[in-house]
Amino acid sequence: MPADPRLARWLQRVEVELEASLPPPDQPPHGLHRAMRHAVLGGGKRVRPLLVYAAGCAVDANEADLHAAAAAVELVHAFSLVHDDLPAMDDDALRRGQPTVHVAFDEATAILAGDALQALAFERLARADVPADLRVDWLATLAEASGAAGMCGGQALDMDGTGATLALPELERLHALKTGALIRAAVRMGGLAGTRDPDRLASLDRFAAALGLAFQIRDDLLDIEASSDQLGKTAGKDQAQGKSTYPALLGPDGAREALARQAGLMDASLAELAGDLGPLSALSRLVVERRS
Amino acid sequence: MPADPRLARWLQRVEVELEASLPPPDQPPHGLHRAMRHAVLGGGKRVRPLLVYAAGCAVDANEADLHAAAAAVELVHAFSLVHDDLPAMDDDALRRGQPTVHVAFDEATAILAGDALQALAFERLARADVPADLRVDWLATLAEASGAAGMCGGQALDMDGTGATLALPELERLHALKTGALIRAAVRMGGLAGTRDPDRLASLDRFAAALGLAFQIRDDLLDIEASSDQLGKTAGKDQAQGKSTYPALLGPDGAREALARQAGLMDASLAELAGDLGPLSALSRLVVERRS
Repeated sequence: MPADPRLARWLQRVEVELEASLPPPDQPPHGLHRAMRHAVLGGGKRVRPLLVYAAGCAVDANEADLHAAAAAVELVHAFSLVHDDLPAMDDDALRRGQPTVHVAFDEATAILAGDALQALAFERLARADVPADLRVDWLATLAEASGAAGMCGGQALDMDGTGATLALPELERLHALKTGALIRAAVRMGGLAGTRDPDRLASLDRFAAALGLAFQIRDDLLDIEASSDQLGKTAGKDQAQGKSTYPALLGPDGAREALARQAGLMDASLAELAGDLGPLSALSRLVVERRS
Repeated sequence: MPADPRLARWLQRVEVELEASLPPPDQPPHGLHRAMRHAVLGGGKRVRPLLVYAAGCAVDANEADLHAAAAAVELVHAFSLVHDDLPAMDDDALRRGQPTVHVAFDEATAILAGDALQALAFERLARADVPADLRVDWLATLAEASGAAGMCGGQALDMDGTGATLALPELERLHALKTGALIRAAVRMGGLAGTRDPDRLASLDRFAAALGLAFQIRDDLLDIEASSDQLGKTAGKDQAQGKSTYPALLGPDGAREALARQAGLMDASLAELAGDLGPLSALSRLVVERRS
């Protein structure tokens, strides 16, 4: 699928990195290790690791320096899906066409597998083969994006808002935290490996913020447009759970316009950056046009 | 209670550090922030942060360098309690004399609060005001101790073993991971702030391994000896849940002998270390003799 040939290469590399980071399935505690592997290795678009590589590429980072950051951000993403799918949260039985972790194993194992994946992400960064200064900046970036001021905070707002109708600014804030924070962290981590220029990092961040919002709007649109088969997860769930979405607030056409606006913002941010922008540009198109 | 006057001072300092690390209760998402504060600020013996300070003291570390490590290790401990208390895990309603987080709030909030506390622990370390080399060593130590090869792995073994009778080596392995790994990480993190001498770090680690085991044996003994009022948590639960314990395997007297053996190992490790050992020594007595 990728328009830039490097994306396909990075996709393969991410799988190798993730596989090598995970504990072996044939050593105890078997259930925990297998649940962690089920959560991470069961497919997935790997958008966040690709963003690490693509952002690094845009600022001329050494590609070999990026593997740990790419793996870590996907481990955090995978952990968040395991916990979000739990019965007490979104109660989802299907993910990437497979039973979710608490269905394939049990709830206790799913909770622990998520916890262990989060720890693994930070361990991977702490032991990365790059200077300590870069490691601590990555760690601070990823930890902040994962916690109460980022992803966990966004999921909490989402749970609080289920059944209530949010206004557009509240919905944007929710998504800026729930999905946006980790996407911005991925782009920043790639950027930090190649530059400390605040202007270039700010341009990358504007790109990432627009991409994060575009990703979510597209997700909401897919939930009403696509089938569960296409998505590999339960379609139509947002509406069934009374969640606020862009199509619900703006209508399907209004949501498509909002998506086009974010695509324009991404192009404008890329125009500010001098560098090898092919992969970032390809990813922005992929997010706007994706069918699953 | 502390025999060394520094312990009382460090106890106060830990509370200040934890309070300052946590998100404000009056900012959204309110439920998440309040649940995180409930989990961390609701009392607790603060054994792990005290071990950070006491180990640092033994190797002449700068006390001001230790605050972030002390706070981080307690944040990880607090997160683990929140998740261990969940209905799908140990299903406990009472902790430190207070309702557990999922009882005081709800399950989704408890899952997210635990996740956010783990992220906060790593963020606190990544942003600590010490050299980057020390920060990455702390981060690697704490992340490894928290994950599948440490605390989460131990809890998984514990869940697997509930209802089954474990042999002594299996029980020791379980506790070496479930409680031992974090206690050893606390001591190592304090040690790393003052020395890189592998012999001194190894002596500290032998002390920590013995203290971790002593802590668990004492815990098991208290579960059969003390009342829920004394403990601030449900007493007699191990037996009711069919968990393997030292008193169940060795009898109460055998467990007390095993505890005395660990006390001897702690003394021997301290004898290997030259330095200011008052606080470590006081903590070892506290763990062996504690009544709650």
